[in-house]
Amino acid sequence: MTQRRLRSLSVTVLLVSIAATVLAAAGEHDPGGDDAVHRKAVQDWVRAHRAKILDELVRLVSLPNVSKNTADLVVNATHLRSMLEQRGFEVRLLETATTPYIFARLAPAASASSGARAPVMLVYAHYDGQPVDPARWTVTPPFSPLLKGDPDDPDARLYGRSASDDKGPIVALLAAIDALRAGGIPPSVELKLLLDPEEEIGSPQVAAVLERHRDLLAADLLVFADGPVHQSGRPTVVFGNRGIVTVTLTVHGPSRALHSGHYGNWAPNPAQKLARLLASMKDAEGRVLVEGFYDDVLPLSDREREAIAAIPRVDESLRREFGIARPDGAGRTLEELINLPSLNVRGMASAWVGAQVRTIVPPSATAEIDMRLVKNVTPQAAVERLEAHLRKQGYTVVRDEPTAEQRLAHPDLVQVRSGHGTPATRTPIDTPLSHALITAVRRAVTDEPVLLPTLGGTVPMHRFETALGVPVYGLPIVNFDNNQHAPDENLRLGNLWRGIVLYASLLRMPPPATPR
Amino acid sequence: MTQRRLRSLSVTVLLVSIAATVLAAAGEHDPGGDDAVHRKAVQDWVRAHRAKILDELVRLVSLPNVSKNTADLVVNATHLRSMLEQRGFEVRLLETATTPYIFARLAPAASASSGARAPVMLVYAHYDGQPVDPARWTVTPPFSPLLKGDPDDPDARLYGRSASDDKGPIVALLAAIDALRAGGIPPSVELKLLLDPEEEIGSPQVAAVLERHRDLLAADLLVFADGPVHQSGRPTVVFGNRGIVTVTLTVHGPSRALHSGHYGNWAPNPAQKLARLLASMKDAEGRVLVEGFYDDVLPLSDREREAIAAIPRVDESLRREFGIARPDGAGRTLEELINLPSLNVRGMASAWVGAQVRTIVPPSATAEIDMRLVKNVTPQAAVERLEAHLRKQGYTVVRDEPTAEQRLAHPDLVQVRSGHGTPATRTPIDTPLSHALITAVRRAVTDEPVLLPTLGGTVPMHRFETALGVPVYGLPIVNFDNNQHAPDENLRLGNLWRGIVLYASLLRMPPPATPR
Repeated sequence: MTQRRLRSLSVTVLLVSIAATVLAAAGEHDPGGDDAVHRKAVQDWVRAHRAKILDELVRLVSLPNVSKNTADLVVNATHLRSMLEQRGFEVRLLETATTPYIFARLAPAASASSGARAPVMLVYAHYDGQPVDPARWTVTPPFSPLLKGDPDDPDARLYGRSASDDKGPIVALLAAIDALRAGGIPPSVELKLLLDPEEEIGSPQVAAVLERHRDLLAADLLVFADGPVHQSGRPTVVFGNRGIVTVTLTVHGPSRALHSGHYGNWAPNPAQKLARLLASMKDAEGRVLVEGFYDDVLPLSDREREAIAAIPRVDESLRREFGIARPDGAGRTLEELINLPSLNVRGMASAWVGAQVRTIVPPSATAEIDMRLVKNVTPQAAVERLEAHLRKQGYTVVRDEPTAEQRLAHPDLVQVRSGHGTPATRTPIDTPLSHALITAVRRAVTDEPVLLPTLGGTVPMHRFETALGVPVYGLPIVNFDNNQHAPDENLRLGNLWRGIVLYASLLRMPPPATPR
Repeated sequence: MTQRRLRSLSVTVLLVSIAATVLAAAGEHDPGGDDAVHRKAVQDWVRAHRAKILDELVRLVSLPNVSKNTADLVVNATHLRSMLEQRGFEVRLLETATTPYIFARLAPAASASSGARAPVMLVYAHYDGQPVDPARWTVTPPFSPLLKGDPDDPDARLYGRSASDDKGPIVALLAAIDALRAGGIPPSVELKLLLDPEEEIGSPQVAAVLERHRDLLAADLLVFADGPVHQSGRPTVVFGNRGIVTVTLTVHGPSRALHSGHYGNWAPNPAQKLARLLASMKDAEGRVLVEGFYDDVLPLSDREREAIAAIPRVDESLRREFGIARPDGAGRTLEELINLPSLNVRGMASAWVGAQVRTIVPPSATAEIDMRLVKNVTPQAAVERLEAHLRKQGYTVVRDEPTAEQRLAHPDLVQVRSGHGTPATRTPIDTPLSHALITAVRRAVTDEPVLLPTLGGTVPMHRFETALGVPVYGLPIVNFDNNQHAPDENLRLGNLWRGIVLYASLLRMPPPATPR
C-alpha cells in the first residue's frame, strides 16, 4: 500500500512540479534561491518571538501529564486543542477507554494552479510524560518549569517534565507554522498531527486507534517528532527505532521477612539468588549470554553502514560526560551497539536500603528488565529465549505469585511477567522519499545531518508502519542530554530555536524524485 | 575479674546456704518442697492479673520508639521510670549525647540472718524498636497495639512494634516482681536493670555508658531478656550470641540515569555489575566464597555439641512454615548453621521497580549486607576479607562517593561503607553459674529447656563481657515467630504468661555450686 500510494504521488509529481507550484504560490519569492530566503525569514521570526514561544511552552509544561493520571491528561488535551485551533487546525479528540488521542489537520494553502496533490505528512508526538519523583528533582519541581540561564543564550535550558519529551517538539512545530504564515510561505504538504496520551506506558491503545481511524490518518509518510538528536548535536534524520519488551523477574525467599541473625545461613536469600540469575545473563563486557539472543538480527545494509561510519564519533565525549571509565561492548561504537539488541536491568529491589534498612532475610527480590530490540527480533522471541535461559539455570518459571505448594515444591522458582512489547522498525535510507526528507533537512541547516538507521529509543513507529502501510521517519530536535525519563528533564533553547527552523523546512519538503 | 568475683561469691555461698537463708526469710514456706508451691503461687497470680498485665504492655507499646527518634524515646523513658518507681526500684537515667539509658536497682529483701551477700544479677533489655513502614503492617498500625484472639487463649497475640522486642520482656519482669511480692516470696538476688535506648541501631553509646558507670553496673552475672525462645517453643537458655557487622556496597554506573534505549548496550549497568559481585560471594548452597571467611571460627566444645544435639529438630517445620523448598547449608541443621558466620543481602536497590519503574540505565546500585559473626571472628577481619574479595574481582574499593576522576580512572569501582560491628560471645555451659541458671529455669517449667550455645540474633553481650568482666547469658521468653524487625511484630500471650513465671524463678535462682 505504501508503495502504491508513493507511486501515484510520484506520477502526480512528474506531471507538475509541486515544488514550483508551491513556491509560485508564495508569490514574491524566487523559486531558485528561495531556500535561504525562507530560512532567514523563519529564523528572523523566531528571534523576534522567543519570549512568546517560550511562554507557550512553559504553560504547556506546567500541566502535570504522568501517563496514568487520566484527569491530568484531559486537561492537557483541552489545552492542546485550543493551541491547535488558534492556528486553524481542524481538531478531533479520538476517544479511547482512558485518555483521548488528539488528531489535527491543517488544510494545505489553496493553490490556484494544477490539481497536484500535496503529499500528506502525518506528524506524531506524545503529550504524556514519564512518572516523576519530585524529591529527586534538583532544579525545579517537575511541573514548575524553570529557565536556567539567559533566554538569549542557546545553552540556557528549560527544566520540567516533558520539556523535551515531547512538549518541546509540539510547540516547535506550531511555531514553525506561525513562522511560515508570518512570512507568507505556504507549506508544501498537507499536515496531519497525532498526539499520543500514552506513549510513556507503551501506547497500549494506539493499535485500536490506528485501526478505527485508518482513513483519517492515511498519509504518505510518517514523521516522529519524539526522541533526541544525535549526541554530536547535529540535526538528525531517523529511519527507524529500537523496539522494546519489558520483563519483571521476582525471586521468592521465605514467605515472610526473617531475622537475619536467627535464619541467616539457613533461609535462602532471594536477593542473592536474583543476583546469580542476573549475573548469568551477561558477560563482563555486556554481551548477552542468553542463547540465540542475537540470532534474528537483520544485518545492516551497505548504505546503512556508510551512514553509521559518517556519524561523528561521540563515544569519547559521552564517556567523559557520563563518568564512564570503560563502556560495555568490547570497543564497538555506540551506534553499532544501538543496532544490536540489549538487555538492561532498569530497576532492582529487595527489602530496604539506606535509612529504612533492616537486618532481615528479605521475602523476595525483583529485577525490572528491558530488552531493546532491533529490526527482525520480535518481542515474543526475546522473552521466550530469556525464559529458556532461566530454565537452563534450573529455575521453574511461573506467571503468578507462587502458591504455598509451588514454593515448597521448587527450590528455584522465578515469577516472570512480561509486556507485549513493540518491535523495531528500519526504513531504508535509499528511497526517493528518504532523499526528499534528507534534502528538506539539509536546506534548513548548515551542518551535515546525521542519518541514523535506528534510534535507540522506542516509539510506536512499528504500529504505524503496520496499520497505515506508511514509511516511518523521525525528525527529532531536542538535545540528547535532556534527562529524558529521569529527574531534571530539560530542553536546550538552541535546540528549540533550530527545531522550529527545521520543522518549517520539513513543511516545505521537496517532492520525492522518481524512483530510480 | 569475672573469675575473681565469682570465686568470692562461691566462698560466701559455702559458708551459709543462700538458698536456705532466702527461703527462711520467706517465712511460711518449707525449703524442701517450695519450688512447686512458689511456682503455683506465681502462676495463680498471673492468671488473676492478666488483664492488668496486658494493659500495662499495651500502654507501653503505644509509645512510638524508633531508635533514631530521640524525643519519642524520652517519652518512653519517662513512662518506664514511673513503672519502675511504682515497684520500689531506685531509678537513674544515665544520660548520653542522645537518649538516656535507664538504670534501676531493687534492693534485696532485708535478711535478718548471716552476712551472706545475694548475687547481683544485671538484667538487660532495650526499649527502642526497629524502624516501621506503616503501609506494610496488615493487622494494626505499629503503635496502635491490638490483641488478636481471645485474651484467655495462649495462642492469642498482641500486635505492635516492640511487643516482643523488648517491651514484652520488660513488662514480664516487672510482673514477676509483682507476683513474688504478692506471694510473699523474696528474690534471692539483688536485681539491677539496664534498659538500652539504641539497641536496634547497634547501641553506639553503650561502651561509653558501661565505662562511665562500671561500679553502678557491677554484677555477678548478666542476663539478656532480648531475643526469642527456640523455634520448638521450649524455654531457652542462651550462652552467647552472634555478632554482626554491616557493610553497604554501592556500584556506580553513568553519573546520571541514562535512557536505556539510547545507551543500553553501551553504558555499563551498575545493577548488573552489583549482581555479578554478589553472585561471586556465595555458592548455590549458601556457602560463603570469600577467602578465609570461616578461618577464625572457634570450634564448638563437646558439651556445646551435646547441647545442640539435644535440641528438638525444627528444620522441617520451619521449612514448611516459611515456604522454603530447600534451605541453604547443604543439609546442616539450623543450629549448626547459627554457629557459623553468615553473609546476608538484607536489602538491595537500583532505580525503581513496580509502578515507578523507568526505562533507564540506573546511575548506581546498592546492596546492604550483614555478616553475622561467631565466637572469635572479629568484625574488622570479616570486613577486611570481604574487601579483599572485592579487590580480587578486579574492583577498586573507595570509602566515599567516588569523584569524577575516580569514575573515569576505574572501570570497576565499589564504594564500601561499614559499621564498627559487634563481636560474638559464648559463655561455657559447664560452669557452676551456668548450672545454677539452668536449674532456675528447670524449676519454673515442665519442658526440658533448650540450651543454645549461640543465639542467632545480635545483642550487645560482648560489650558487657568486656567492660564489666561478667559472664553473659540470655533468658528470652518471646515466641520465635514474632516478626521481630519486620511488619506485624507480635507477642504470643502464652509466652508472656510463661515468661513471667520464668523470670520469677530466675529472681529466686539457687546459689552456684562450688566449681568442680
